[in-house]
Amino acid sequence: MEGGRVNLESVHAVIPAGGAGTRLWPLSRQSRPKFLLDLTGAGRTLLQQTYDRLAEIVPPDQIHVVTGPAHAPLVQEQLPDLGGLFVEPSPRDSMPAIGLAAAVLARRQPGAIIGSFAADQVITDTAGFARSFRQAVAVAEAGMIATIGIEPRSPSTAFGYIESGDLLDVADAPSARAVSRFVEKPDAATAAEYVRSGSFSWNAGMFVGRTDMLLGHLARLQPHLHAGLERIALAWDTPDRQRELEDTWPTLTPIAIDHAIAEPVSLEGGIAVVPGAFDWDDLGDFAALHALGNAGSSDTVWVDGSGYAHAEDGTTIAVVGIHDAIVVRTDDALLVTTMEHAQQVKEVPAALKRDGRTDLV
Amino acid sequence: MEGGRVNLESVHAVIPAGGAGTRLWPLSRQSRPKFLLDLTGAGRTLLQQTYDRLAEIVPPDQIHVVTGPAHAPLVQEQLPDLGGLFVEPSPRDSMPAIGLAAAVLARRQPGAIIGSFAADQVITDTAGFARSFRQAVAVAEAGMIATIGIEPRSPSTAFGYIESGDLLDVADAPSARAVSRFVEKPDAATAAEYVRSGSFSWNAGMFVGRTDMLLGHLARLQPHLHAGLERIALAWDTPDRQRELEDTWPTLTPIAIDHAIAEPVSLEGGIAVVPGAFDWDDLGDFAALHALGNAGSSDTVWVDGSGYAHAEDGTTIAVVGIHDAIVVRTDDALLVTTMEHAQQVKEVPAALKRDGRTDLV
Repeated sequence: MEGGRVNLESVHAVIPAGGAGTRLWPLSRQSRPKFLLDLTGAGRTLLQQTYDRLAEIVPPDQIHVVTGPAHAPLVQEQLPDLGGLFVEPSPRDSMPAIGLAAAVLARRQPGAIIGSFAADQVITDTAGFARSFRQAVAVAEAGMIATIGIEPRSPSTAFGYIESGDLLDVADAPSARAVSRFVEKPDAATAAEYVRSGSFSWNAGMFVGRTDMLLGHLARLQPHLHAGLERIALAWDTPDRQRELEDTWPTLTPIAIDHAIAEPVSLEGGIAVVPGAFDWDDLGDFAALHALGNAGSSDTVWVDGSGYAHAEDGTTIAVVGIHDAIVVRTDDALLVTTMEHAQQVKEVPAALKRDGRTDLV
Repeated sequence: MEGGRVNLESVHAVIPAGGAGTRLWPLSRQSRPKFLLDLTGAGRTLLQQTYDRLAEIVPPDQIHVVTGPAHAPLVQEQLPDLGGLFVEPSPRDSMPAIGLAAAVLARRQPGAIIGSFAADQVITDTAGFARSFRQAVAVAEAGMIATIGIEPRSPSTAFGYIESGDLLDVADAPSARAVSRFVEKPDAATAAEYVRSGSFSWNAGMFVGRTDMLLGHLARLQPHLHAGLERIALAWDTPDRQRELEDTWPTLTPIAIDHAIAEPVSLEGGIAVVPGAFDWDDLGDFAALHALGNAGSSDTVWVDGSGYAHAEDGTTIAVVGIHDAIVVRTDDALLVTTMEHAQQVKEVPAALKRDGRTDLV
């Protein structure tokens, strides 16, 4: 097996499964968010596809999901062989979620490595993903935090970027480079410049690190958050888990792993990036879904029209005179827009929420 | 009462209720066409509104509907006080339909006058309509065939036009003029010229005439059709009605009253036009429905969008980034288009028919 010298015995995959996917309304709802849906028509939900991809690399009992209480039952139903389920009482962004898993797994298996991968991304080249994953594990074994940077297919303004610097000399990670900096979603001109330079990749939010390193960075950079996570981890495998969660979780600093660790540690030279040469999409909106080759599921009549049309109830859709249309029908709602306005769809659940139509959000 | 000298005792109103309204798909279907729907949200269907308008002028037992067997039950349900129902075994255009009513009523009441008015038109100024109707009856009493020409609000290319000539000298019809000619739907430049000239009106297909005059014209111009209608009329109020209908109806020439009588008789100077100064719309498509002030029925969320959105099932519609949109949702179908393409909607049921989806047509 390629990269076979990398030891995966102590490697755990953590899938933070949060986020509503409001730009995929009305398919994606608070009660059945994006990751619980089979958006690609693969017969597996995005969460299941994420799990399947990781289960080719690590054993199922080393795969864990962090999610909220509302989604825990469906997660368990969709992933019956899952190693562990971390139920966070309320969403407090990605650092508390990943930090909780890190703190608990570090106590159970000192020196454990965790890799964190979002629940709602699509990758079909699982072998390519596995190759990058193994290099990232090698980097983690060497004591750095690794991220996988996706080779950009286009100067997208929908993603953050990672600038890579010098090649590192890490055993079994020949492509790993130091991260110069993480940058937020750029404007179009800047994105084009990034892609032209050849030294930028898309930030897919994939992080791999030794739990002791992650927790060490956290103790330095976010001591309050670290202390709270350690208290919860101490109680986790005892009868006190629920009480400690209830007491401490609401006090944790809500912060993303990018801001808590990735960005500050990159400035210290502690983050490495491994290139991801595989296809990757975060299915951010219906235009992304359509670009992936999904034309919807219903028998649509297109008269001087084109785009994505999907009726969950199988009813016939007719589109007349609109190109690049997006039409999505559920039993209780209907979205009509165009590819150009796909990102604006998030304003619909926001407006419904303001109007008290929480049943539709 | 204005125009009180006009005698309405022998005046019958005939409502040909055919036509599918394919440009109003998916609301309008073969099984529940346009005229059976409450498209204006008035609480009354278009057929009922047509009946109501006529019942202000003539007694209900002098109002008749000509329709097909599939729609007869709903017509009777919607109009319980209707004077008479003529069920045509199959649609053969407007001349056989109106001619049948004329032939039967002429036998029952020699010298009867009939006025024919489509079942799917909208007029809110019923007093204005009544004034024109009375002048048209006065013209009919004088032996001419009268039409009501709608004063054009715009240089529409969706309607045929009537060119009026010299003022006639008919008692109780001071505004009646001879018809110079009927013209088909013009192009935009011609329509603009028509409206500028001041001597053209829209052809709303409203005809009023003495039954003996109508049947006389028919005997001259369409002798075969006339003979067939007379045979059916002779049997109508006898046990032979159904047999005669079955034998003769399928042999009748399918032709519109415009081509059978209005156009040829106008060339002989036998048609008069009475101005219609009231509001009028034939609700030809969803753009017309919207122009009438109908914005749809559902609680629509418009984000950078506008237009007509209607969900028959009351579900929430969201339109993002499309202006002048048309969105119509029924339990089994969905139409998405724009005002600009409203006329093209008829291509959808045509395409469905070709595909054998007769359940949706």
